[in-house]
Amino acid sequence: MVPRYSRPDMVALWTPEARFRIWFEIEAHATDALAELGVVPKEAAAAIWAKGAFEVDRIDEIERETKHDVIAFLTNVAEHVGPEARFMHQGMTSSDVLDTCLAVQLARASDILIADIDALLAVLKRRAVEHKLTPTIGRSHGIHAEPVTFGLKLAQAYAEFDRNRARLVAARADIATCAISGAVGTFANIDPFVEAHVAEKMGLSIEPVSTQVIPRDRHAMFFATLGVIASSIERLATEIRHLQRTEVLEAEEYFSPGQKGSSAMPHKRNPVLTENLTGLARMVRGFVTPALENVALWHERDISHSSVERYIGPDATITLDFALARLTGVMDKLVVYPARMEKNLNKMGGLVHSQRVLLALTQAGVSREDAYRLVQRNAMRVWESDGALSLQELLKADPEVTAALSVAEIDDKFDLGYHLKHVDTIFARVFGE
Amino acid sequence: MVPRYSRPDMVALWTPEARFRIWFEIEAHATDALAELGVVPKEAAAAIWAKGAFEVDRIDEIERETKHDVIAFLTNVAEHVGPEARFMHQGMTSSDVLDTCLAVQLARASDILIADIDALLAVLKRRAVEHKLTPTIGRSHGIHAEPVTFGLKLAQAYAEFDRNRARLVAARADIATCAISGAVGTFANIDPFVEAHVAEKMGLSIEPVSTQVIPRDRHAMFFATLGVIASSIERLATEIRHLQRTEVLEAEEYFSPGQKGSSAMPHKRNPVLTENLTGLARMVRGFVTPALENVALWHERDISHSSVERYIGPDATITLDFALARLTGVMDKLVVYPARMEKNLNKMGGLVHSQRVLLALTQAGVSREDAYRLVQRNAMRVWESDGALSLQELLKADPEVTAALSVAEIDDKFDLGYHLKHVDTIFARVFGE
Amino acid sequence: MVPRYSRPDMVALWTPEARFRIWFEIEAHATDALAELGVVPKEAAAAIWAKGAFEVDRIDEIERETKHDVIAFLTNVAEHVGPEARFMHQGMTSSDVLDTCLAVQLARASDILIADIDALLAVLKRRAVEHKLTPTIGRSHGIHAEPVTFGLKLAQAYAEFDRNRARLVAARADIATCAISGAVGTFANIDPFVEAHVAEKMGLSIEPVSTQVIPRDRHAMFFATLGVIASSIERLATEIRHLQRTEVLEAEEYFSPGQKGSSAMPHKRNPVLTENLTGLARMVRGFVTPALENVALWHERDISHSSVERYIGPDATITLDFALARLTGVMDKLVVYPARMEKNLNKMGGLVHSQRVLLALTQAGVSREDAYRLVQRNAMRVWESDGALSLQELLKADPEVTAALSVAEIDDKFDLGYHLKHVDTIFARVFGE
Amino acid sequence: MVPRYSRPDMVALWTPEARFRIWFEIEAHATDALAELGVVPKEAAAAIWAKGAFEVDRIDEIERETKHDVIAFLTNVAEHVGPEARFMHQGMTSSDVLDTCLAVQLARASDILIADIDALLAVLKRRAVEHKLTPTIGRSHGIHAEPVTFGLKLAQAYAEFDRNRARLVAARADIATCAISGAVGTFANIDPFVEAHVAEKMGLSIEPVSTQVIPRDRHAMFFATLGVIASSIERLATEIRHLQRTEVLEAEEYFSPGQKGSSAMPHKRNPVLTENLTGLARMVRGFVTPALENVALWHERDISHSSVERYIGPDATITLDFALARLTGVMDKLVVYPARMEKNLNKMGGLVHSQRVLLALTQAGVSREDAYRLVQRNAMRVWESDGALSLQELLKADPEVTAALSVAEIDDKFDLGYHLKHVDTIFARVFGE
Repeated sequence: MVPRYSRPDMVALWTPEARFRIWFEIEAHATDALAELGVVPKEAAAAIWAKGAFEVDRIDEIERETKHDVIAFLTNVAEHVGPEARFMHQGMTSSDVLDTCLAVQLARASDILIADIDALLAVLKRRAVEHKLTPTIGRSHGIHAEPVTFGLKLAQAYAEFDRNRARLVAARADIATCAISGAVGTFANIDPFVEAHVAEKMGLSIEPVSTQVIPRDRHAMFFATLGVIASSIERLATEIRHLQRTEVLEAEEYFSPGQKGSSAMPHKRNPVLTENLTGLARMVRGFVTPALENVALWHERDISHSSVERYIGPDATITLDFALARLTGVMDKLVVYPARMEKNLNKMGGLVHSQRVLLALTQAGVSREDAYRLVQRNAMRVWESDGALSLQELLKADPEVTAALSVAEIDDKFDLGYHLKHVDTIFARVFGE
Repeated sequence: MVPRYSRPDMVALWTPEARFRIWFEIEAHATDALAELGVVPKEAAAAIWAKGAFEVDRIDEIERETKHDVIAFLTNVAEHVGPEARFMHQGMTSSDVLDTCLAVQLARASDILIADIDALLAVLKRRAVEHKLTPTIGRSHGIHAEPVTFGLKLAQAYAEFDRNRARLVAARADIATCAISGAVGTFANIDPFVEAHVAEKMGLSIEPVSTQVIPRDRHAMFFATLGVIASSIERLATEIRHLQRTEVLEAEEYFSPGQKGSSAMPHKRNPVLTENLTGLARMVRGFVTPALENVALWHERDISHSSVERYIGPDATITLDFALARLTGVMDKLVVYPARMEKNLNKMGGLVHSQRVLLALTQAGVSREDAYRLVQRNAMRVWESDGALSLQELLKADPEVTAALSVAEIDDKFDLGYHLKHVDTIFARVFGE
Repeated sequence: MVPRYSRPDMVALWTPEARFRIWFEIEAHATDALAELGVVPKEAAAAIWAKGAFEVDRIDEIERETKHDVIAFLTNVAEHVGPEARFMHQGMTSSDVLDTCLAVQLARASDILIADIDALLAVLKRRAVEHKLTPTIGRSHGIHAEPVTFGLKLAQAYAEFDRNRARLVAARADIATCAISGAVGTFANIDPFVEAHVAEKMGLSIEPVSTQVIPRDRHAMFFATLGVIASSIERLATEIRHLQRTEVLEAEEYFSPGQKGSSAMPHKRNPVLTENLTGLARMVRGFVTPALENVALWHERDISHSSVERYIGPDATITLDFALARLTGVMDKLVVYPARMEKNLNKMGGLVHSQRVLLALTQAGVSREDAYRLVQRNAMRVWESDGALSLQELLKADPEVTAALSVAEIDDKFDLGYHLKHVDTIFARVFGE
Repeated sequence: MVPRYSRPDMVALWTPEARFRIWFEIEAHATDALAELGVVPKEAAAAIWAKGAFEVDRIDEIERETKHDVIAFLTNVAEHVGPEARFMHQGMTSSDVLDTCLAVQLARASDILIADIDALLAVLKRRAVEHKLTPTIGRSHGIHAEPVTFGLKLAQAYAEFDRNRARLVAARADIATCAISGAVGTFANIDPFVEAHVAEKMGLSIEPVSTQVIPRDRHAMFFATLGVIASSIERLATEIRHLQRTEVLEAEEYFSPGQKGSSAMPHKRNPVLTENLTGLARMVRGFVTPALENVALWHERDISHSSVERYIGPDATITLDFALARLTGVMDKLVVYPARMEKNLNKMGGLVHSQRVLLALTQAGVSREDAYRLVQRNAMRVWESDGALSLQELLKADPEVTAALSVAEIDDKFDLGYHLKHVDTIFARVFGE
């Protein structure tokens, strides 16, 4: 965890306190279920809830001797509960506690991340509607292509994060299972009723077949999904970085009054937030492969996954939470320059309308190859003039072109509105009615 | 593509012929829709279906000059169709064809992979039922833990691949979209009706908002899902490799009569198929990160994703198809040695029953700490005897133990059936009634 | 292997013919050494060289029965050599042949790649010298910073690839070892002299301790090095893509006369080669992790690395060879627009000189904080004017500034030559005298 | 950073205090050089050394306002130094400080890691010599192959880590460069002499051509090298995990008296340290790809690498330091069971000697194919008897075998010493005389 890329709610999920609290709840609920089954006295279960407590430092102290965290935890709780503590953890194994706890943590982390995406979606929708008809040049390969609107760019981002939301909801369901099945998962020493009871109380579904551990394909899918979301963050961040380039400057990250862009160059306003998001995306992606490598545990289980999860459990969720919130902030406050968008759009001397002319020529009976040649030869002159010449005027002066199209027909092809006529259609698809 | 790790049906999806055939269908269906809209003559659409054809070599030849594959394709088709070919591709851009084609290919690849998983699931279920009650030792950390059955191991694998099936179905839906939206995705030059028509004919859903390209988060999710499946393959392959170790030898890959295990050591029968699967899993996993890196295209699109997809489109699906089929073959013919499983199970002098004794002691009123100490001191003697001593006998000779448990109670704790009593429960969870 | 991203010399290294030829040489040289030791008859060794031959199809046919490639190869060679063939492969194991062959292939691949880098370095040097003093704006965060020269950009690329060359030379030495040590690497059945002899003949060093296989940390280092080189390719490719953006357009990939940029938009000239290189870099990077995962073989060896190497051996080297050559071609023919560079450089109203003024103010006794504030308030006005205002003029009209600096002193700070005075120093560091 | 996988010396390198101390030294040395050049007063340089100080909390406070860490640092230092502080950082840019600092940190981290490897090498050598002639079965594919010694296994590990040491020394040299070249790296505002001076004082070499930042191919190579070392750790850890398996039990991690293996199963002694190392290796490997992705910065620099390095700078070095030390501890205290090794070696009824018989038969004139058939048919009987039959006896009873080899000749092939005769050779190669 890097503190500057962390937010308190997500961090709070991963503290030792939070973890031990979940352990305690799992153990106490399990003891309730055992009491209901008559395996342990009801008084014991009640005593655990009534007197149960723990101290992180004391657990650490015991663990230094026993080298086993769950035993250390149980020993510490027993110091508070007294002799009835011996009824805790009956028939359970450490993994029952650890894996169910991790499921709770990842499910809660998912809830935060889903809320993060919802906040981002709300901002994207608002800004998309705001700029629904703000014309800007669409670019393929970094080269001017044809007009779009800035709202369309944001609608695309909205649709992408809406898909990511659905993927995360699915990944949450995948990860949110409870296993209380005892050593090697056979329920030999613990009735499946206990698992069902704890699952319900902790908001999880039961793990149909565990092998002491919850199978790690679930976690792999979860972290892979975070990697996809991170990559979408990188896409939108890269868009902003491009738009803020000095030569483009169609949008800028909000630059607060006290902020300094460079210790050496006072004029600079850099897209540092989106550059930062690009790096954070690399990290979240970097956690995917270790999670995939965690799947192939030996036989019923080994413990190799554990150290990996101590890193990526907190780091992937905390980093992604931070990144989503940062991206939401960037998009919320993004300074958009429609005038500059218009200026850039027009700088190519009308080249962006070339395709319409091409189509008009073919529809007027010119062969595709000839039409392409006619348009390209004029387009190339405009291109080489760096926008000083106008395609519209050149075409009207080209006899081969005017042989097929009237001047009025040519002029008609340079209408910006033509390109925006389906914006409503696309918005309806993305945002509904 | 490595021929030895390829199967013909999947390979056939990725040939130039197959790709151009899909291109042709997309173009022809699109022209149908344009004709229905009255944009092009109905006769042109009919002519394309009637006379349309292509030759891979000729397309390659034209591409060498134009350096543009879709133009080369259209030119070649026009050589067959004649002048009416000019109505093809009206208002479309190359990406409309390329991305929709890739969607068709990946959807069809998914269908093959889903069928592969179904075949694997059928084998796993059959072998699981066959060995539902074949006792074997469960191992955590590679160390004997408590008894399970071989059927339980396979039930776990079944449940894991059943999850993978569901993930793949979701990934298929994610990837199977059609974009016919023209340059930068605005539908400026093509009515959305064309997209809807082609989508329906090609078995795809429409892409709500494309930007000339179908957004690559979809593909990233698809390849990430393949990476998870590959990791599950590695898990089961690793299990078989472990079981075939000389010292364990509880199961073996089928070894055909003519096969030679080693050029130098004729006695060897190596788990080469599952070792191979371990390597193939690494490759499919290795394709995940490039797919994630493909998401952040510049502005409306760049072409950097294309070369990556020329590798991983075929390689990930062909390799995974081969791996699933190979794993199915391994599991189908796996030679299982129940006698050896029993022998291994018993070799630890009854240590695998230690937990039951621990529980019985605590239930008899011994504190958890004392019970642990009592069991461990006897367990350690058995352990150090390499199985020559019997835990059951040592416990019956330990006065501190017999102070809490009768001999009959001790004997009762060494019953194998005790561990298998919930196999039915687990099987019902995994396979239904 | 994707044919369009392949060049014949590198492909030729990886054909079955090439591989079997290397196998043959290893076996024949080993038999020579055995003959020299008196283990086998000298006539046998002579016969192998004289009559030895193989046919790929026949080997494939035998392998289908034996499922073992080296045995199939030896059987086929024996069909040509006759009974003396039984002296081949004495005391050797398949891995001796396979791993030594892979070392030869990777060493030869390295030679091609080193030559590729040399060709790239030559082009980079030539273009760097050509544009040593071509001024262009340096950009940090995509924002104009201070002037550099285009030659400096290329000098940086030169230095980076020069480091990559040294890394590749080191990786080649790491990978180029010969192991002829027999089963589990003990030399029990083969004298170390054979290994030394084959190593010398094949241009390799001996593997100090093999365990039937050459340890895979060597290969991991090799492929990791290729991943670093690929990332450097991506850096330079990204630079070109940025320079070719419509709004920047300081350089362009060469666009051949017949080439078509877009089927829809005839005016487009896209940086497709460098976009392609970006994707190819992702692939070569994607091969690093499988190579790293290959290191942890079980005990003396397992075969899991083999399938991975069948993919990445050819694919990583062939792709990188192609990418280096493509990059060399791009840089060789790159169309550079110095006039546009100058125009862009001047478009910010002199903001790029702001730091010099800042320094001059502090040297004139103004506190750093005040100097920063003075420069920034004028810089911000220029920035917001989109380059219409001139920083030079604003500063001269700011009484707080002129209180510290004379007009002449201010003018002096806007001299371009000031920024280029150490270009010689840097060129001398990079290219020597 | 995960505290439990951290050691204090490496952690100390990455604290804010350590970082700011290095910043201070860089700034103060740079001011010395500026004073020597006459650019700033000598008294200023002296004052900085004399009065310079900083407080982490105060820097954080200032950074919250300025959002710029180096400016915050300089402001805080100026609070101590007074007005002469304005001569600090003259002509420098933040990256000069940040990147040179990172180089110092990574160089010092390398020194710790090299010392770690040296400690590991010393232990591996001691244990290798101790078990130089301890026979154990060599295994390929997890299947018994032929005899080796436990010392040979360790010699292989030694050689592998010796290579890793050399790679790390090279990576250290790659990373240990100093850049003090000012904005966009042109030395416009700072003389190259400053860089040379700071480099010498900080123990670095100069960066021949920086572009405000030190190029990230250096860092990529560094972290890739750590990934290779981590993979070697995984290899040795995997070996130990295999050796400790219940059925193999040829070696065990040292198990301290108070340690508990399982909360449920008191008899268990699990290889938890080496399992843990397997997971840690996954993490260090996972940091390689983000480092590779950091190479392609935009133009002269962007800041996307920075967040990645805030994670992987500390995490990769701290984790690897911990892992190397843990591995050293495991190997130092590893409990080795030569008796069990011997027992396992003999359990296959002499099958491990099959190759010698094969060779002897061919040397006696039997064709390779016939020899293979003869050995295999007897070997298979032994195999199927689970070691109850003896290959030696079966061969002596096989008339086709005895037609070629006498009983004495057969007996001679079952001599263990035969396999160990070149252990000296290999040890001399690895450890020198």
